[in-house]
Amino acid sequence: MGDMIRDLPPAGAPATETPTQAQAQPRNKLFLGSFIHSKTKEQLEYLHGAAVCVDAAGTIVAVEAECDLKKAEAEVLPHLGWAAGDVEVCVGKEGQFFFPGFIAPPPDTHVHASQYPNVGIFGKSTLLDWLNTYTFPLESSLADQKKAKRVYTACVKRTLAHGTTTSAYYATIDVAATNLLADICLALGQRAFVGRVCMDREGLCPDYYKDESAADSLRKTRESVEHIRRIDPGFELVAPVLTPRFAPACSGEAMRGLAGLQRELDVLAQTHISENEGEIELVKELFPEAESYTDVYDSHGLLGEKMVLAHAIHLSEKEADTIAERGAKVSHCPCSNSSITSGAARVRWLWDKGIDVGLGTDMSGGYSPSILEAARQAALVSRHVAMGLKGEEKERAKLTVEEVLYLGTRGGAKVVGLGGKIGGFEVGLQWDAQLIGLPVVDEDGEQEEDGNVDVFGWESWENRVAKWVFNGDDRNTRMVWVKGRMVHSRK
Amino acid sequence: MGDMIRDLPPAGAPATETPTQAQAQPRNKLFLGSFIHSKTKEQLEYLHGAAVCVDAAGTIVAVEAECDLKKAEAEVLPHLGWAAGDVEVCVGKEGQFFFPGFIAPPPDTHVHASQYPNVGIFGKSTLLDWLNTYTFPLESSLADQKKAKRVYTACVKRTLAHGTTTSAYYATIDVAATNLLADICLALGQRAFVGRVCMDREGLCPDYYKDESAADSLRKTRESVEHIRRIDPGFELVAPVLTPRFAPACSGEAMRGLAGLQRELDVLAQTHISENEGEIELVKELFPEAESYTDVYDSHGLLGEKMVLAHAIHLSEKEADTIAERGAKVSHCPCSNSSITSGAARVRWLWDKGIDVGLGTDMSGGYSPSILEAARQAALVSRHVAMGLKGEEKERAKLTVEEVLYLGTRGGAKVVGLGGKIGGFEVGLQWDAQLIGLPVVDEDGEQEEDGNVDVFGWESWENRVAKWVFNGDDRNTRMVWVKGRMVHSRK
Repeated sequence: MGDMIRDLPPAGAPATETPTQAQAQPRNKLFLGSFIHSKTKEQLEYLHGAAVCVDAAGTIVAVEAECDLKKAEAEVLPHLGWAAGDVEVCVGKEGQFFFPGFIAPPPDTHVHASQYPNVGIFGKSTLLDWLNTYTFPLESSLADQKKAKRVYTACVKRTLAHGTTTSAYYATIDVAATNLLADICLALGQRAFVGRVCMDREGLCPDYYKDESAADSLRKTRESVEHIRRIDPGFELVAPVLTPRFAPACSGEAMRGLAGLQRELDVLAQTHISENEGEIELVKELFPEAESYTDVYDSHGLLGEKMVLAHAIHLSEKEADTIAERGAKVSHCPCSNSSITSGAARVRWLWDKGIDVGLGTDMSGGYSPSILEAARQAALVSRHVAMGLKGEEKERAKLTVEEVLYLGTRGGAKVVGLGGKIGGFEVGLQWDAQLIGLPVVDEDGEQEEDGNVDVFGWESWENRVAKWVFNGDDRNTRMVWVKGRMVHSRK
Repeated sequence: MGDMIRDLPPAGAPATETPTQAQAQPRNKLFLGSFIHSKTKEQLEYLHGAAVCVDAAGTIVAVEAECDLKKAEAEVLPHLGWAAGDVEVCVGKEGQFFFPGFIAPPPDTHVHASQYPNVGIFGKSTLLDWLNTYTFPLESSLADQKKAKRVYTACVKRTLAHGTTTSAYYATIDVAATNLLADICLALGQRAFVGRVCMDREGLCPDYYKDESAADSLRKTRESVEHIRRIDPGFELVAPVLTPRFAPACSGEAMRGLAGLQRELDVLAQTHISENEGEIELVKELFPEAESYTDVYDSHGLLGEKMVLAHAIHLSEKEADTIAERGAKVSHCPCSNSSITSGAARVRWLWDKGIDVGLGTDMSGGYSPSILEAARQAALVSRHVAMGLKGEEKERAKLTVEEVLYLGTRGGAKVVGLGGKIGGFEVGLQWDAQLIGLPVVDEDGEQEEDGNVDVFGWESWENRVAKWVFNGDDRNTRMVWVKGRMVHSRK
């Protein structure tokens, strides 16, 4: 491991534990070192030489600034009624820091797990031809369970390796394959929202890949929800998310039915909105009675606090106001929006409207499984938004390192309705975290460890975090925990 | 190594050779496997099951399609008069491919080696405040030789590890530190253009970091050129590049002097142009007699075929026409241009004007030392350019995977004046190459090797290359050669 000690007596911690192996007896844990998390949108909090105590259920029960192992053993653990011998200890090395796990919120900060094999493959396409050329054929092929297992396992492991502790997945229309994805998330320990894709509209959906009817959409969705309830009755780790693909793929009947199902089950929903000009035109044609794209979802009862809307690029002022009023959330997908030339979403403008925003990878429209990459691209895209503005507006449009990290953690948590549960290091939140290590350049100019960030030693912590955001990758993510359980560590 | 065999009898090849160790007796080499390189801007050529023979001087002497080891030994080597026993053999494994090394052309596809420690650190700054806040203090501190050695060694090793076989460096104003950078490039085997930065203008350059006068600029530049001539008399690997920082930092006298020096020495020059609106205004103020930013360089005699202009974002039609007429080149720096909100350069438009374009990282304005990242961002930025256009122009503005790889290889070679020497796999060109490996996902969804690209096996070669461009990093760059010498291999 090298990064930490975990050997306080009795050293019973499963040192060779693999991420796929359930922990038979979860123990109380003590984390020591530097902790960095979003305090507000604008501000990261840096806690150095601190301690965080996590109980066996994965909940943070103490956060102590200025606390080393000695002080923790003498004061903090006794206060919790924990015997030092029963506690698993994890120490971040000099220069490493704990950071909240990334949250790729579902109803919108969304990942199309089924499209994972297509990352980076989009040519010069835009949304609608991309769906037919690349996406539908691949999704449809995942009805093959063996293929689905291979693809979904690779996707979940890959996103965990990038520090994504919560992910909202679009699966496919196939119930069995969707259920398999939920099983895989649960087994590998990723917090996940898993959605069976609903798409029943004649004409737009290809014959080989569509629900037979609105009733078929609802029945199959219910089947998938029930499966998830069986494997995780309290939706503690894996929860369902209703997933009308996007308005053009759904009949009005299906959308109204899903809205009813949402009221009945009180679960999240996720869909796409206003991604592409061609798509917006299509929505106008298909729903001539609706005032706008937003109004389509609103008038079908889907626009509420538990709806996450991916993209939201070309919204009018009025649409954004409606979204804000309804309390719906937005998932910003900068990689995808740039890749397939959809446009540049205006995060500052959405925030100014009072809309909660998180970050989605939108694979494979987005080319990367990494929320860190999405954060980086969110910063860059905000600068492209700024290039089109003047004066103070131009300055304001730019997102800082602090703000894009907020989007990837606290912002995402609020978007998926878990703002009170994950996203930071506070008592009562769950320990969904990653340990970040940044290689140091030695005196001869050699890098001590593999990775793309070079720290020379004179950088402030703020600058180290900026280096991580701009050059970091999965090599810097040394360990990942969800709900207190270690779910990934780099070999 | 694992990636290749190099053990034909006599297996005298230095298997434990390190990149810093000069090869005592360079040998003839035979490379076997898949080779991919740009045929034209629009087209990559895929040679599978092929052989490339490289002589001891590092020059490609044979390229044979459909050729395995047996055929090479029976036909190709005898034809060259090479005994099989004298040849070092390197075989790319199934799924790996040889690709030309990346070229970060100097006069413009430029890297500020001295700013390497600042990658990713730019906050919300734009060009002029970024220089004063981040850049000048760091550059000035590199007069400390020990610090310079550490920073430059890390920078050269890092860029080699990313497959950059040719790099154009901005060093600092310090002659000794600049010469040290040239020494390091030669020792580590990177083809490089090394430029001592000229900046003598009172007022703009800080007192603690400027040449004393135009004469001082010229004298110190000459000193650095002479040093490089001593260590590499034919400029075979390392060459000087005249480096007026940018017009606002240079007096007219210094620029005219450098133009004279360029005529005398027949060497490359590199500078910045039209990066930022504030900078353009400043140039107008400082050179009221000039018609445009371009005209400043032109009227001082610097705008010729051997001038590389970095950025070139906000050029007018007339300026671009002038640049094309003079045969000057452009270095496109998309990471930097987005990071510090400079703007989006229009590569298609520059190409349409007939201007040669390469890719620069422009560290640390750009956050990454990788030309692959620059290629990826060039594709994304071209889509942001497209978002502002309509119809056919919109489509044309987008750069394909093929085109951005061309920018990073052949395009860069033309920009630095080495189009006839490097950038592809043809007889007569030098073997500046990288071996790319893409990890394969096994049947259980596990990745066989470390890296961010997941190949499932069903992808076409075109799609594998797209995956590499969008998710690849230095982990995929298994080995790197310059002029036939292996200068990097992943442990």
